[in-house]
Amino acid sequence: MYSLIPVGRVRSPLTARGGPRQADEGAPAAWLELDARYAPAARGLRPGDEILLLTWLDRGDRGVMEVHPRGKPEAPLTGVFSTRSPDRPNPIGLHRVRIAEADGETRFRVDALEAIDGTPILDLKPVLGDVSER
Amino acid sequence: MYSLIPVGRVRSPLTARGGPRQADEGAPAAWLELDARYAPAARGLRPGDEILLLTWLDRGDRGVMEVHPRGKPEAPLTGVFSTRSPDRPNPIGLHRVRIAEADGETRFRVDALEAIDGTPILDLKPVLGDVSER
Repeated sequence: MYSLIPVGRVRSPLTARGGPRQADEGAPAAWLELDARYAPAARGLRPGDEILLLTWLDRGDRGVMEVHPRGKPEAPLTGVFSTRSPDRPNPIGLHRVRIAEADGETRFRVDALEAIDGTPILDLKPVLGDVSER
Repeated sequence: MYSLIPVGRVRSPLTARGGPRQADEGAPAAWLELDARYAPAARGLRPGDEILLLTWLDRGDRGVMEVHPRGKPEAPLTGVFSTRSPDRPNPIGLHRVRIAEADGETRFRVDALEAIDGTPILDLKPVLGDVSER
């Protein structure tokens, strides 16, 4: 067992599960608000950067092993490791976003993020090239 | 604070930090060994699938906020959120790999993975298209 510490929160107009499912389906812009103590870790993040945002999907059901993808009952039951369902053993969300604006050292506006207001932020990582990890 | 439960372990010939840094720099093949109880979650994973593997970098130093990227002292000090350093507040590793072989329901061989033998596995996710999250 390992412990995660939120480094900040998502601020978004989204307030409930079941909204847009992917960026191309109309997720809204959002703010990433990091705790002040993480300002040194955020140093160097700039508008235009493409990043991977890791979140904690705190409403995910950790006992779920198989789902009907995208909540469609007609879709065949699928192991959660082959889906992006928030219901999974370790409900870590992964979102590719672009930083659109920085406000001080610890607030960053991003395009099109499907994450509920208040979602804990775990990590930010740079996007790497195609042949390496993302 | 949130708790993570390992769903399996990496089996790799890599036994120490400081080896290859990215897939294109020569990381070896490895096996992902999931615990038997997660077999239903892994149902549907097939050779040829490109996946994102999330690991727990248990040797990461969680107090580090800035690093010299790739361990090169001549590289300028950079906030860890702009790097893939294993030293970061929540040391979650993210690796894009291809499943090369399945052995039963819970063992999967993958190409080129930079993760030390015994690294805890947290999650597996499908790679999505370019416009959506990864």
